[in-house]
Amino acid sequence: MPEKKNISVSCDWGKKPDGRKKIQTENKSRIYCYKGKSSWRGIKAEAYKPPGREWADVVRQTLIGSYGETTKFHLRYFEIAPYGYSSFETHKHEHVVIGISGKGVCVVGKKRYQIRFLDTLYIEPNAPHQLRNPFKEPFGFFCIVNSKRDKPKILK
Amino acid sequence: MPEKKNISVSCDWGKKPDGRKKIQTENKSRIYCYKGKSSWRGIKAEAYKPPGREWADVVRQTLIGSYGETTKFHLRYFEIAPYGYSSFETHKHEHVVIGISGKGVCVVGKKRYQIRFLDTLYIEPNAPHQLRNPFKEPFGFFCIVNSKRDKPKILK
Repeated sequence: MPEKKNISVSCDWGKKPDGRKKIQTENKSRIYCYKGKSSWRGIKAEAYKPPGREWADVVRQTLIGSYGETTKFHLRYFEIAPYGYSSFETHKHEHVVIGISGKGVCVVGKKRYQIRFLDTLYIEPNAPHQLRNPFKEPFGFFCIVNSKRDKPKILK
Repeated sequence: MPEKKNISVSCDWGKKPDGRKKIQTENKSRIYCYKGKSSWRGIKAEAYKPPGREWADVVRQTLIGSYGETTKFHLRYFEIAPYGYSSFETHKHEHVVIGISGKGVCVVGKKRYQIRFLDTLYIEPNAPHQLRNPFKEPFGFFCIVNSKRDKPKILK
């Protein structure tokens, strides 16, 4: 094991974390501390897509992929408000969805998958899919995608 | 929104899931239902690496990457037993670590990051790193990596 004389970068355990006053845009190691309530220090909520009828009440946060990281994948966290839904769409790239808070449903082709805490869903290429929250609590989940990916085609 | 006349594939919500009697090896959509206690239906624990002095008490589960998925990334879940640690190593590929259960520490170069539930750590390419659990409870975390990656070099 390496020596223990290291500087500690803490998530609420004593010393303050690096504060994220400046946004890190170099390809450098970093931690995003979870603040609770579906938010991370240093990560801002984004609009899911331009407003439209095909989706409702979805908030996106990009944890890995916007600030110089060289991974071949991006990590995003989505939250769908009660009775909200993502767009019904298809694309060549795959999705991996991991349920985190609340519960929801994912329609994939003719199947409906119910997703709760840590349930992990793989969506194959070109499968029409939509995430929905028919419940009273917000539905939060990670969604991992390839960093290079095609544009979704919206379905009706 | 698409029609609701779909077959439901449930994670403990009524109907049994597909059972995973046969291992799915085609590039098809699927769900891995979380059973609690750091295990998923259909996913088996693996040896972390061949036994050696450079690591102790680590169990790996590959959720996405072993059964025909075409993603450019693999999703694994690791659990480090109390006082265990991963190998101290370096490689060109990046890591993304998401704390899930318990808490732990990741040494990255000269820094020490403390990781709890949903804290998200990005480890840059070529950074010497080691995950450790100096606590009394198991430390469980997701680790996402590129599907094509170089072999780690073990450090002392």
